[in-house]
Amino acid sequence: MKNNNALYAQSGGVTSVINATAAAVIQASQSSSKITKLFAGKNGIRGVLKEELIDISLENKQEIKKLMHTPGGVFGSCRHKLGDINSNPREYKRLIEVFKAHQIGYFFYNGGGDSQDTTNKIAQYTIKSGFPVTCIGIPKTIDNDLPFTDNCPGFGSVAKYIATSTREAGLDVKSMADSSTKVFILEVMGRHAGWIAASAGLAKEEPSDPPHIILFPEKPFNQKSFLEEVNSCVNKIGYCVIVVSEGLKDSKGKFLSDSNQSDSFGHKQLGGVAPYLANLIKHKLGLKYHWALSDYLQRSARHISSQVDLDQAYEVGKSAVKLALKGENAVMPIIERISNNPYRWKIGKISLSKVANVEKKMPKNFITKNGFGITKSCKNYLKPLIQGEASSPFKNGVIEIARLQNKLVKKKLKQFKL
Amino acid sequence: MKNNNALYAQSGGVTSVINATAAAVIQASQSSSKITKLFAGKNGIRGVLKEELIDISLENKQEIKKLMHTPGGVFGSCRHKLGDINSNPREYKRLIEVFKAHQIGYFFYNGGGDSQDTTNKIAQYTIKSGFPVTCIGIPKTIDNDLPFTDNCPGFGSVAKYIATSTREAGLDVKSMADSSTKVFILEVMGRHAGWIAASAGLAKEEPSDPPHIILFPEKPFNQKSFLEEVNSCVNKIGYCVIVVSEGLKDSKGKFLSDSNQSDSFGHKQLGGVAPYLANLIKHKLGLKYHWALSDYLQRSARHISSQVDLDQAYEVGKSAVKLALKGENAVMPIIERISNNPYRWKIGKISLSKVANVEKKMPKNFITKNGFGITKSCKNYLKPLIQGEASSPFKNGVIEIARLQNKLVKKKLKQFKL
Repeated sequence: MKNNNALYAQSGGVTSVINATAAAVIQASQSSSKITKLFAGKNGIRGVLKEELIDISLENKQEIKKLMHTPGGVFGSCRHKLGDINSNPREYKRLIEVFKAHQIGYFFYNGGGDSQDTTNKIAQYTIKSGFPVTCIGIPKTIDNDLPFTDNCPGFGSVAKYIATSTREAGLDVKSMADSSTKVFILEVMGRHAGWIAASAGLAKEEPSDPPHIILFPEKPFNQKSFLEEVNSCVNKIGYCVIVVSEGLKDSKGKFLSDSNQSDSFGHKQLGGVAPYLANLIKHKLGLKYHWALSDYLQRSARHISSQVDLDQAYEVGKSAVKLALKGENAVMPIIERISNNPYRWKIGKISLSKVANVEKKMPKNFITKNGFGITKSCKNYLKPLIQGEASSPFKNGVIEIARLQNKLVKKKLKQFKL
Repeated sequence: MKNNNALYAQSGGVTSVINATAAAVIQASQSSSKITKLFAGKNGIRGVLKEELIDISLENKQEIKKLMHTPGGVFGSCRHKLGDINSNPREYKRLIEVFKAHQIGYFFYNGGGDSQDTTNKIAQYTIKSGFPVTCIGIPKTIDNDLPFTDNCPGFGSVAKYIATSTREAGLDVKSMADSSTKVFILEVMGRHAGWIAASAGLAKEEPSDPPHIILFPEKPFNQKSFLEEVNSCVNKIGYCVIVVSEGLKDSKGKFLSDSNQSDSFGHKQLGGVAPYLANLIKHKLGLKYHWALSDYLQRSARHISSQVDLDQAYEVGKSAVKLALKGENAVMPIIERISNNPYRWKIGKISLSKVANVEKKMPKNFITKNGFGITKSCKNYLKPLIQGEASSPFKNGVIEIARLQNKLVKKKLKQFKL
């Protein structure tokens, strides 16, 4: 009996376009004669382990199309890390059982660096176990820290949101700065790499435009030079817009967001580096400030996705199925930049063994000498990724979203404890 | 000598569409033969007092058109409160001097409740002083708390942003809730009235949709029932999305947020009830949470403005000029709702003496019995205000904005100390 079924699962933090990748995998699988049935793991690999498999064939094709403009992970996601393949093969064994029980010959795992490590391990284990399953990784991460690929699906849309929000909020601050708030701090995601913070720099057209200061995890925070820069900026321009990565660290490598602060009720202040900086500015410079923490808003803002990002999210999904059907294994489709202006790209591929657990940080020549801005090279790299406005359709004034049934197939195995 | 010049100024917190009102005042003034020249106060009434008047005639008409899609207050704004008209007429006297020096016969003040109190006082003082100036208030406030008008320009766009962001972030939380974050808190503006928080309720189409809990300043916070509701929601639906107004108070009327700073109207500067609630949820329920503080992002998000809001912002500006030219004084154009479905509205007017310092809060029948949601009546009221997507044009992937010169006219008076 041939194992002609396929399984797709979403992993890690979700994005505004990961469901476009899902739509591509679904549409490519359904139009291939080699794949009989496509399942989706409920809540990522956890659902696969629990044999919670969603039967995609039951979904309405119109709703599947709507995945193109529905943020979040429609089948659910997780951050589950499989155990060590040698010392703790229990979960790998279970995966083989599930694959066998549902005749799964293709496995598509849509996630970032950690997830691609998982995909690779599963690929190796299935070969070793004598039940080879074609395992294809599909890139996704707003952090843009996967190696080899030009960029990561999900990132371009966050970059567009952050650049636009920085320009918009900057105009707000500028309006009131003469007699009110002079410093505005926007905290953005990106725990280990400054790509998202860097993207705010795309809002700057003229030298006096916001953002005036960008703080990257790649650059240890120097309180003195930071406060000097804020002060000089307020004196020169009248106000100061700061975009800071959540992963900003001090010179000892400690996250600044971990610094203990208490509010007036004596509660420890939660969530972030922005209030830490605000506090510094208040006490050291005596300037009036505001701060924002966009948190999940930035990575789910499907109403302002980048068309380039959406296209690439779809193409990596389509290509993953193509690669699988061509007999490739343990690879991941990647985006290859052909030219900058006009921006042209194509889909390539890379072995998962090379991708796993490598983080692509901002190169040194992308950060200005003073450490507070992005260089022209960085702009040239980032700019193409935020082009095109791929908004969702709206219904009753709010974005329209897919509503899937997510019906599970009948279980065939015993319960498995996670 | 007839005083045929006009003066426009922006006041209070800015919005994503206040510049559309400015564009309307400029275009209506420039096409009227009765108005010779239009000035704008730099940074609101403060600039008027300092005789810092922007010469609008020097601006390129194409840039003025771009004000239709430029957030923030392009001429600058302030929260300056004039002194008592009887005990401290110094600033009123100065205004008369500035009006006289620049032959200003019309004054348009674009702001919320406090600002309209100012407009009214100026109107009364100019009559008393024998130099009558036609003073017209133009409504603007994201807080939607002005009386008599159906709604306030600026609010509909924030409402659309909050409803959309709640739906988007809600899908993100739902995706990961099985094994990660179960509670998401979005803190929104609205100091004394819950209109912005309420607008999140427009994201809810089905009973299990977010937001699951809305917290209004009109409803004193009850820790016990709140925690019970969060817990029951997580047990039933798997996750819980909370939208909270910055102005949430305890049973004694004290703000739950932690700020002890005040603006010049004596309002407390807020921004910290989300971490307060997150802390409660962590310690009392042990649930994993995330929270966002959209701060200025919500009121400057011009890329997702409501078309209805934009239209109304323009019409109140146009009507203000019309009212002035018809010889009306100390009035404000308001929006009057003719019908709900289809939403039809027209411009009316109200005497400023009735508007000043009255706050329109959420009526009781707009909040559900349990205090955590909005009723059908509330939805019927809010829904028309977020209809239509009035995005800015984009340039290089970011919203395109007007760039004015803001050149000041030559001063004729002695310096004035604010």
